[in-house]
Amino acid sequence: MAKFLTNRDENYAQWYNDLVIKAELAENSVVRGCMVIKPYGYAIWEKIQSELDRMFKATGHVNAYFPLFIPKSFFSREAKHVEGFAKECAIVTHYRLKNDEKGKGLIVDPEAKLEEELIIRPTSETIIWNSYKNWIHSYRDLPVLINQWANVVRWEMRTRLFLRTAEFLWQEGHTAHATREEAIEETEKIINVYSDFAENFMALPVIKGYKSENERFAGALDTYAIEALMQDGKALQAGTSHFLGQNFAKAFDVQFTDKNGKLDYVWATSWGLSTRMIGALVMAHADNHGLVLPPRLAPVHVIIIPVFKNAEQLGRISETVYKIRDELLVKGISVKYDDRDNNTPGWKYAHYELKGVPVRLAIGPRDLEQGTVEVVRRDTLEKKNLPVNNIADYVVTLLDEIQKNIFSKADEFKKKNTFYPDKWDEFVKILNDGGGFIMSHWDGTAETEEKIKNETKATIRCIPFDSPAEDGKCIYSGKPSKRRVLYAISY
Amino acid sequence: MAKFLTNRDENYAQWYNDLVIKAELAENSVVRGCMVIKPYGYAIWEKIQSELDRMFKATGHVNAYFPLFIPKSFFSREAKHVEGFAKECAIVTHYRLKNDEKGKGLIVDPEAKLEEELIIRPTSETIIWNSYKNWIHSYRDLPVLINQWANVVRWEMRTRLFLRTAEFLWQEGHTAHATREEAIEETEKIINVYSDFAENFMALPVIKGYKSENERFAGALDTYAIEALMQDGKALQAGTSHFLGQNFAKAFDVQFTDKNGKLDYVWATSWGLSTRMIGALVMAHADNHGLVLPPRLAPVHVIIIPVFKNAEQLGRISETVYKIRDELLVKGISVKYDDRDNNTPGWKYAHYELKGVPVRLAIGPRDLEQGTVEVVRRDTLEKKNLPVNNIADYVVTLLDEIQKNIFSKADEFKKKNTFYPDKWDEFVKILNDGGGFIMSHWDGTAETEEKIKNETKATIRCIPFDSPAEDGKCIYSGKPSKRRVLYAISY
Repeated sequence: MAKFLTNRDENYAQWYNDLVIKAELAENSVVRGCMVIKPYGYAIWEKIQSELDRMFKATGHVNAYFPLFIPKSFFSREAKHVEGFAKECAIVTHYRLKNDEKGKGLIVDPEAKLEEELIIRPTSETIIWNSYKNWIHSYRDLPVLINQWANVVRWEMRTRLFLRTAEFLWQEGHTAHATREEAIEETEKIINVYSDFAENFMALPVIKGYKSENERFAGALDTYAIEALMQDGKALQAGTSHFLGQNFAKAFDVQFTDKNGKLDYVWATSWGLSTRMIGALVMAHADNHGLVLPPRLAPVHVIIIPVFKNAEQLGRISETVYKIRDELLVKGISVKYDDRDNNTPGWKYAHYELKGVPVRLAIGPRDLEQGTVEVVRRDTLEKKNLPVNNIADYVVTLLDEIQKNIFSKADEFKKKNTFYPDKWDEFVKILNDGGGFIMSHWDGTAETEEKIKNETKATIRCIPFDSPAEDGKCIYSGKPSKRRVLYAISY
Repeated sequence: MAKFLTNRDENYAQWYNDLVIKAELAENSVVRGCMVIKPYGYAIWEKIQSELDRMFKATGHVNAYFPLFIPKSFFSREAKHVEGFAKECAIVTHYRLKNDEKGKGLIVDPEAKLEEELIIRPTSETIIWNSYKNWIHSYRDLPVLINQWANVVRWEMRTRLFLRTAEFLWQEGHTAHATREEAIEETEKIINVYSDFAENFMALPVIKGYKSENERFAGALDTYAIEALMQDGKALQAGTSHFLGQNFAKAFDVQFTDKNGKLDYVWATSWGLSTRMIGALVMAHADNHGLVLPPRLAPVHVIIIPVFKNAEQLGRISETVYKIRDELLVKGISVKYDDRDNNTPGWKYAHYELKGVPVRLAIGPRDLEQGTVEVVRRDTLEKKNLPVNNIADYVVTLLDEIQKNIFSKADEFKKKNTFYPDKWDEFVKILNDGGGFIMSHWDGTAETEEKIKNETKATIRCIPFDSPAEDGKCIYSGKPSKRRVLYAISY
């Protein structure tokens, strides 16, 4: 166990924070609620970006960039949207500093006050739909399938690295369609992209479903979400896709002429996934030794560590290592060789375990004699001595196996921690005993949802798409229900 | 000539603006001075990012992300830095909106005033060096070679799409070194990366050199720049690399223990290249038909247009097109097939000329009979009928030739418009007759530089690295000078 990490089972929250900092993913900045994403954390984000971007483009989307600033008045146009975001936004009021005449140093120049205040985007529906007004006139201009990679700001009062920060990075898709059906199809297509990405790249099993009205995006008619289970029994919302109906088109007067010459408002979707996912990666897979990165998102797949006593030994080991490294590189595997002489092999083992590098190769003088190499996989920490010949092929297969195993482990955890209580005291007991996903009946009212939240902190995470029809009684009110929904305490 | 474009030779500024908008690169947003980068413009930026990012990584750099906000007090720490940026920055003073009790709608909540105002980063030296303070303690922590892809805000009063906007996208490198020599070496390395990128990808010949003290980055001991000549005879600064000495380390108290156990301040560089480069691409290469994109940065290399009268013809043409397209795709060439039936081939020809697609293939029924295809290259508009067999190989070679030809043309233009006057009236005449690069002597004083600027608007763009030693007299003051420097009117 990494000595400097808090034990995961003793204090999960502290373990998480320790790990994010010690593994050099991110740290808090001097600016309240804002984080610095350090190179190793950012390298994971680059992997996430690159895979998602490829998936968006493969489904016909293009990227663009809209302004950081949103005029204050834009917020008032969509009533629910303003309710959702006005209370937590950074506001630009001036555009110049000056030296105080009374010697107080640098002050905001009162003469440089903006006529209308600008909000730092918490999300870009308003500024984007204001542009779409000029872009969309006819059905021939549709669909518009645009995504943006950007920073956004939500002035959260209680922040946690990656999970909830005042500024974060994300992608936000904003699409425009000629029909309701097409927009709904897009909303579904994207939630499927997100769940494919979560399961196949993040090795994170998720439940797809509808949000209840309470939990919907401010301004959406329907929100689809993917929900994942963390190791402490809490749920994490990992991506959302919104069917916005004609709300924003009406707020910004975006109308088009359809094929029959009839004027109608445009149909919209929006969807986003953020740096929060890095937090999910940590919380779903990491252990007391550190990160456990799925190979498909690991910045470094293989770390090679020489075990040597002197420069001559290191020289001979390096000759073999360079051959192995080249073989791995041509197979598209990223490799790092740590031949520094100021740390012991033991220190390095712990260091790269902390960093979650999927495979470690170690080579010492005896390995050279015997033509072997020590292979350790990070997910199970299992050790093997293998012939150095064909080691590259072995590693390729191993990485694939690690990817699958990390998913299986998380999936088993999820299955083991998904419960189907039918009685309220069972429901409460599950939450008190460590939480998990709770599939129970609900009477469909916001009132019951609210009461459950107040009594237990659990909320309806989603109404799963695949939750089968089943007659039952609401876990709280006892009123009739037609299907189970997913409850959990969430991040 | 594209009818809807202003003629380049009649009104260059209007031609530029028309072209940026008509070619759908960008447009002005409702937010003063901010632009919307449209998908086609953003696709060029993605190409620029991808090539530069590769070059940065190949030279040992990694990416990270620092906060958008900079506490006001940070600016005061480096005296020249604050002078350079305080007068044009967006300032966040509040963090909440509320509904006015008197019914005035949404207002800034006066109770949500920040204790210390936050500046939207105009550049990130201060916030980054404040982090480096915690990261750097020993020579073993050095060098730090970090780059950031980000948006920045400078509250410019007179803006032009891409060239000067309140918000723009860029990369900013911020490196830390143990010695002065190493930092200078880094500053040079990056200006070479920039000039390689400009010449080999943007097809833009540049002059590398030192900035005069007047033109240096606020807080730098030395600024290196690459300067390019636009078709209207003005210069455009296309990238800068700064040697910051120990200024920021001192301002943020970043010290390290060197190999001998001695404490010293860290040496720094910073360097940046922005979306301005898209403006340079337009202004350097485009013509009265539209953009002329160098193939290495063109989002689409080849546009294929079918010439048909009915669906049956289109069907037969498409069969051939699909074969050509597949052959091109496997060679890594990006292809678009525009088989829409609501525009004429002539309209499409003009459209993709406007968009600067390097190669156009057109196929009609007669081509099918004869086994030919019409090939038009965008840079010269030269037309050829070629056998459809081996067309992919031909296109690969042609793209390479176009890339070279665009560079050659720009390089010839630069040579033809670089002048070496020794008398003041010649100097003035050149500027009045259409400008260009002017290599003349300078007495080395800021006073002379200022006077020349006031009288002619021309500034010293740089003191070229390769300007040979040559005894002469200052073009303005007549005082002795040892080498020529580069003057021009600039963007």
